[in-house]
Amino acid sequence: MPSASFNPLVSRLSPPPVPSVFAWGRAYDGASGPLIDLSQAVPGYPPHPDMLAWLGEAAASRAYAGYGPIEGEDMLRGAYAAEMAEIYGAPVIAQNIHITSGCNQAFMAAVMAIAGAGDRVALTDPFYFNQETTLAMLGIGRELLPLDAADGFVPRLDEVRATLKKGVKAIALVTPNNPTGAVYPDPLLKDIFELCREAGVWLILDETYRDFLPAGERPHGLLSIAGWEENLILLYSFSKSFCIPGHRLGAVTAGERTVAEIAKVMDNLQICAPRAPQVAVARAIPALKQWRDANRAEILARANALRAVMAGLPAWKMDSLGAYFAFIRHPFDDRKSAEVAEMLARKAGVVCIPGAYFGERQEAYLRFAFANADAGTIATLADRLGGFTP
Amino acid sequence: MPSASFNPLVSRLSPPPVPSVFAWGRAYDGASGPLIDLSQAVPGYPPHPDMLAWLGEAAASRAYAGYGPIEGEDMLRGAYAAEMAEIYGAPVIAQNIHITSGCNQAFMAAVMAIAGAGDRVALTDPFYFNQETTLAMLGIGRELLPLDAADGFVPRLDEVRATLKKGVKAIALVTPNNPTGAVYPDPLLKDIFELCREAGVWLILDETYRDFLPAGERPHGLLSIAGWEENLILLYSFSKSFCIPGHRLGAVTAGERTVAEIAKVMDNLQICAPRAPQVAVARAIPALKQWRDANRAEILARANALRAVMAGLPAWKMDSLGAYFAFIRHPFDDRKSAEVAEMLARKAGVVCIPGAYFGERQEAYLRFAFANADAGTIATLADRLGGFTP
Repeated sequence: MPSASFNPLVSRLSPPPVPSVFAWGRAYDGASGPLIDLSQAVPGYPPHPDMLAWLGEAAASRAYAGYGPIEGEDMLRGAYAAEMAEIYGAPVIAQNIHITSGCNQAFMAAVMAIAGAGDRVALTDPFYFNQETTLAMLGIGRELLPLDAADGFVPRLDEVRATLKKGVKAIALVTPNNPTGAVYPDPLLKDIFELCREAGVWLILDETYRDFLPAGERPHGLLSIAGWEENLILLYSFSKSFCIPGHRLGAVTAGERTVAEIAKVMDNLQICAPRAPQVAVARAIPALKQWRDANRAEILARANALRAVMAGLPAWKMDSLGAYFAFIRHPFDDRKSAEVAEMLARKAGVVCIPGAYFGERQEAYLRFAFANADAGTIATLADRLGGFTP
Repeated sequence: MPSASFNPLVSRLSPPPVPSVFAWGRAYDGASGPLIDLSQAVPGYPPHPDMLAWLGEAAASRAYAGYGPIEGEDMLRGAYAAEMAEIYGAPVIAQNIHITSGCNQAFMAAVMAIAGAGDRVALTDPFYFNQETTLAMLGIGRELLPLDAADGFVPRLDEVRATLKKGVKAIALVTPNNPTGAVYPDPLLKDIFELCREAGVWLILDETYRDFLPAGERPHGLLSIAGWEENLILLYSFSKSFCIPGHRLGAVTAGERTVAEIAKVMDNLQICAPRAPQVAVARAIPALKQWRDANRAEILARANALRAVMAGLPAWKMDSLGAYFAFIRHPFDDRKSAEVAEMLARKAGVVCIPGAYFGERQEAYLRFAFANADAGTIATLADRLGGFTP
């Protein structure tokens, strides 16, 4: 009997990377002290007690047990639009917001709204791996915009121009960047956006780590450009800032026509994001501002702690350090990044993501999600890395 | 400046159907009494108080604020596998289960795991509209397996054979059916499954409404067939049975290889289903068995109430009545189903879904989600429908 076959676009993908990295950590014997998990980006502090209370209250309510609006709860769309308007100093309204079940879903829904199999979308190299596998499984061709350590892993305009000439439907950028941490400057983003507009190409900007930029810095001025709605899609996650990734909540900010197209995708994809966390986050956005600002300062302190530690480890080269991540060149030139990361987890109890997961050219690198660990823990990396050989 | 374009596979889709149907209901002036909503399938009784308490407890817990396993919480996979094993009298284990964020997502993730753009998948005609738009937006060709009122809207084997000859990757069936309510008999499902196996084609069975079958009836014996894992994927929703659609929870039952492929899709699609509802439903599956059985009896009583009402309305022909839905031929041969449904909502305050939403051939029909309304409300349809002209 012939056996039924899988979709080759999916079956040729490797298993999801994060669980396999966790497995390396479980093989660590504890000899150098507790496991330090710098792999999946999860803040190493708990959600605010009020956040948990509001999540519980909304989840226990009969009011949110039924289906909700596809685009998201009015109160969350309104609260998040108001926050966007304040951060960017630009008019963002509730109708510009589509709530999703996390930022991976925001990316997938946005990409499906604008591109199909056979189209091409550009990612940077290194890229965020789930964006790459999302394109791959949808049969959307991937163009890579190469980044270099010498440029601080920030795109060069000549490379952007070359990418646009390849006929892509969109360029997807992540700023602050995953995996490098690099923060793309406002003038550069403006130039890239103008090039995209001239070419009739979408700019998708994933701003999952925006809340960990230094306080008071406007990330960019794109939302103040007249007609931004025609070419711009912004993505965001409530997971990191509110420490609630298990509740799966993200958002798209886009023009109303784009929101309407994404709603068609979302209706098929899951009808609506889970409602109770939407209601809780709508309360938390104005209420937990101070707490989020304190966390922002804490994460910046962790970045400084990592900078200090790495200064004492000259064989390990920290080529990039930003809002949440550091992209670190390991000293073992002849070894694959997955091999180094596996051994680092098994022998030194430090779990991180191999550079190769973010692109074939990244074998020399490891991604450290330093924001996961407090400054005291980060300080112990001196011994863990200093004495390590794979 | 050229404007960036959308994905034509999405832009050519109509807006999601349910919100537009709700809009008709909002235009009703109340003249004939309260609005009767027989549109989107939502049980017209609240969740069990314990269910709400468990949802609240889990959502307020720090333990479930972080990321969870892609495939779902072990406790829910285990509890649901045990329930499946009991219902089907077959060995189903936790590794056969992939938890999703609702059953639309279960369908989409399952389809993506086995088919890509350019492949073809068969649906019945009438179909469940979100399955049809999911295929359309993925660029997967749709083959239609025609059903007839004369056969009770149950597939005929000759049509199944003809469909398989068209080279489809899968046949997707819904039983108990949406929109007709038809329950596909076990021997027929076995025959269809054997034909699929011979052809090396997947059988996808959406069993969202399984819990509203008469008590004690095993839905089918497919899980007792050796090697079922190679060709069979079962889909389910926790929304209807536990009255918690707002929490978005569904499940796939499949072979372990298929679960692994679906996990790759889910990782991109949303990493994992929301965790707190998973934990709550894992508790509810064994604990609320009696309550669910009572609801099953209640829904059967509602079906009987509808049968009684329709017997007194000979111009309206109830061609099919099943677990949750009735598929009713309206008396206005010269009118489009959307026009009849819109007028029925606006003038008589009865909201239902036009047949055409389930396939172009279904203009003569309306879908009544009778389970949404209690028997007393259903009895008032005699007046509402009896005096109605569009």
